[in-house]
Amino acid sequence: MNRATDEFVAELKEILSESQVSINETVLEQHSKDESYHAISKPDVVVFPMTTKEVSEVIKLANQYQVPVVPFGLGSSLEGHVIPYDRGMTIDFSLMNKVLEIRENDFLVKVQPGVTRSQLNKELKKYGLFFSVDPGADATMGGMAATNASGTTAVKYGVMRDQVRDLEVVLADGSIIHTGNLAAKSSSGYHLNGLFVGSEGTLGCFTELTLRVYGIPEYILAARASFPTVDDAVEAVVAILQAGIPVARVELVDEPSMKQVNQYSETDYKEQPTLFLEFHGNEAGLKQDVQFMKEIVLDKNCVGIEFETDNAARHRLWEARHHLAYAYVHGYPGKKLMVTDVCLPISELSGAIHHSRKTLDLLGLNGGIVGHVGDGNFHVLLMIDMNDKEEVAKADDFNEQIVMYALERGGTCTGEHGVGIGKQKYQEKEHGEALNVMRKIKQALDPHHLFNPNKILKMGK
Amino acid sequence: MNRATDEFVAELKEILSESQVSINETVLEQHSKDESYHAISKPDVVVFPMTTKEVSEVIKLANQYQVPVVPFGLGSSLEGHVIPYDRGMTIDFSLMNKVLEIRENDFLVKVQPGVTRSQLNKELKKYGLFFSVDPGADATMGGMAATNASGTTAVKYGVMRDQVRDLEVVLADGSIIHTGNLAAKSSSGYHLNGLFVGSEGTLGCFTELTLRVYGIPEYILAARASFPTVDDAVEAVVAILQAGIPVARVELVDEPSMKQVNQYSETDYKEQPTLFLEFHGNEAGLKQDVQFMKEIVLDKNCVGIEFETDNAARHRLWEARHHLAYAYVHGYPGKKLMVTDVCLPISELSGAIHHSRKTLDLLGLNGGIVGHVGDGNFHVLLMIDMNDKEEVAKADDFNEQIVMYALERGGTCTGEHGVGIGKQKYQEKEHGEALNVMRKIKQALDPHHLFNPNKILKMGK
Repeated sequence: MNRATDEFVAELKEILSESQVSINETVLEQHSKDESYHAISKPDVVVFPMTTKEVSEVIKLANQYQVPVVPFGLGSSLEGHVIPYDRGMTIDFSLMNKVLEIRENDFLVKVQPGVTRSQLNKELKKYGLFFSVDPGADATMGGMAATNASGTTAVKYGVMRDQVRDLEVVLADGSIIHTGNLAAKSSSGYHLNGLFVGSEGTLGCFTELTLRVYGIPEYILAARASFPTVDDAVEAVVAILQAGIPVARVELVDEPSMKQVNQYSETDYKEQPTLFLEFHGNEAGLKQDVQFMKEIVLDKNCVGIEFETDNAARHRLWEARHHLAYAYVHGYPGKKLMVTDVCLPISELSGAIHHSRKTLDLLGLNGGIVGHVGDGNFHVLLMIDMNDKEEVAKADDFNEQIVMYALERGGTCTGEHGVGIGKQKYQEKEHGEALNVMRKIKQALDPHHLFNPNKILKMGK
Repeated sequence: MNRATDEFVAELKEILSESQVSINETVLEQHSKDESYHAISKPDVVVFPMTTKEVSEVIKLANQYQVPVVPFGLGSSLEGHVIPYDRGMTIDFSLMNKVLEIRENDFLVKVQPGVTRSQLNKELKKYGLFFSVDPGADATMGGMAATNASGTTAVKYGVMRDQVRDLEVVLADGSIIHTGNLAAKSSSGYHLNGLFVGSEGTLGCFTELTLRVYGIPEYILAARASFPTVDDAVEAVVAILQAGIPVARVELVDEPSMKQVNQYSETDYKEQPTLFLEFHGNEAGLKQDVQFMKEIVLDKNCVGIEFETDNAARHRLWEARHHLAYAYVHGYPGKKLMVTDVCLPISELSGAIHHSRKTLDLLGLNGGIVGHVGDGNFHVLLMIDMNDKEEVAKADDFNEQIVMYALERGGTCTGEHGVGIGKQKYQEKEHGEALNVMRKIKQALDPHHLFNPNKILKMGK
């Protein structure tokens, strides 16, 4: 791998316009980090292509000069995915941000990778449609596909991978492929949609995405249910799922995190372990579901349940939940956010959360526990002083203990944030021999290891 | 690639017991065909392993002798997938047919590849659970995963790929990997679950599958709705989907096929284009959905709608639908079944079915049209006299016209049957440059092209 030389940059400026190629220090800095605690590293050059052809051509050039290529959406990743540790060229997709086509009768939308979640939903609303994946951050569609993002609604609508019908991908040699089609299902050829989603820029750069969207539900009901303990709340979730009640969202927010919510979002929610719930459906069905749900949570020691049917209160509730990570960041100035992200079979969830709290206390760390508990996925949010070596070491130790607990019980080291640089060290333990298969695929598709080098997999130079 | 020699067979008998290795002519013949019209070809030897270790060892041996390996479930494939055109060794998984573990609280089940759909559902029923994928044939789980099977319930529960949490896979060199974990979602590493599902035995042999299962719905309602024309029926489906009514199944059966149903299943259903529908949910919600659905179908010229709430009538209805392919086979003794299998975006479905009927008439072919119309997937069932060259040529021409129509409109050449040998010639047209990516993956994982050679992709010797 080579650094981007002056000659390389000069050639980039022959492919793109002057303004689409930047070596400005501020621009390089903006592309040196994400929202995580991982060390920063600047690229040599940032390009802002406007078309697939431009992406293909700059990648061909990078291939010719053996310069690393890192795709960049909005930089909201949480494991250092977009940080160019081997420097080289970052491709910023912010100028490729058009909603290209809405096929309302097919429940499909075609977008460029730089389109953000809120931008897409604003467009879709005109058609009575919405895009389901909701990771909190207002991430780009390209970035969300690259990490297989999910979030609060996955329990009903699935993760990012479930929404992708087709990707236009530029490969390491600059060639352009389509990974799927517009049909709702297919048994034709290998499942490239699935392979490229979650590949974190290590196999290709996405230049167009065709995504599944949904009709806005006829009726939506949100609720907050408070419990004396986190255990009670988790047991209530397991019971709700086992009863077959189709929840659209079910989020756990523990007591310290509820305090952070109230402080940041100026709400006056009860400061007890709380489930934020949402149900989508028709009115009659929902009323029956919710009645049943109430009986279940009361049976699990629920001490208060509040329903919010009007849109404003519902939005306030989910905004408060979404802003929680920012609430922590805001509440601990100068510290950096480390978020654990394990996911386990639901029967192991209660034990895992219990283990997390115990380990936090043992290590003397402050942390909030929140989670997409309907999927068995939870996060511990830690605010770390990166200059305090002992605190950093403790946090690393904590993260590792959480991961090992999950892996020993059939879980995964990352439910939705991805591997990036932070979860690389657990790949061997999690995948075993299968890691060799992943390496063979990487080697076959990116023989010079130029695409987001050493993310997910260490491949050597 | 080599034929299986006497020496190879002798070595197999050192790994397995005598009774697990067969060169008996009847056994070879049983493994020379599937349920399709494709030409037969016998393997040299059939093995019946009982453990993953045995599968690994016979594959290592095959690798050493460069003998082709074809996995075999029950032989219910429809595009020649299991026919060993390069001969070699067929691995029959019928002795690996145990349900290994039911984790009812996690909605997961671990099975061996030879477990059939009906066997699994019989086990699951004891726990109030069911396995959703229902392709009609009583196929094995291994076979269904190999082809990414789906069927009548995919519109609500998704296809086979959506149910697979983990596969134990024996690779071409005999090594054993796990492709996933037990968590409901993961962003860790490349999505090997998705890659191996639908790989039709060309990348590995499945020896264990961990699958998602569901709680049996509280309330199930089935209905038959008759229409004057197929167009009216399809338009009704599109309207139902657009209204956001959550159907669990919606099947189209055209007039000739209704006649076949009545004859074979001794029913007295109206012999008009018919939708078979099913709804899963709670009673109150379903009643509201069904009321809305009734208004929609009546608006689309529905001439009669019959509800079946009791289990017996409901089972009779779905049995009749499932037995339709066999009804055709039974009704045309001596002829072979050719089934088209395109899938299109739902907005193109009505045009595609119209085009099929017109093309059938133009070519003077008899065929029934049925389909999983909620997914945009439909089949034309043709009974072909394989000795009548003109009829065979016409049927091939017909299949090609149907496929081209779909591919030109964003569809796929196979919605659920897979590529096998029958859809290979359309892979270039459907996938374009992406076919090279598939070839690179095949080359990386099976460098000697021994695993189900020349299925899906032509790789040369």
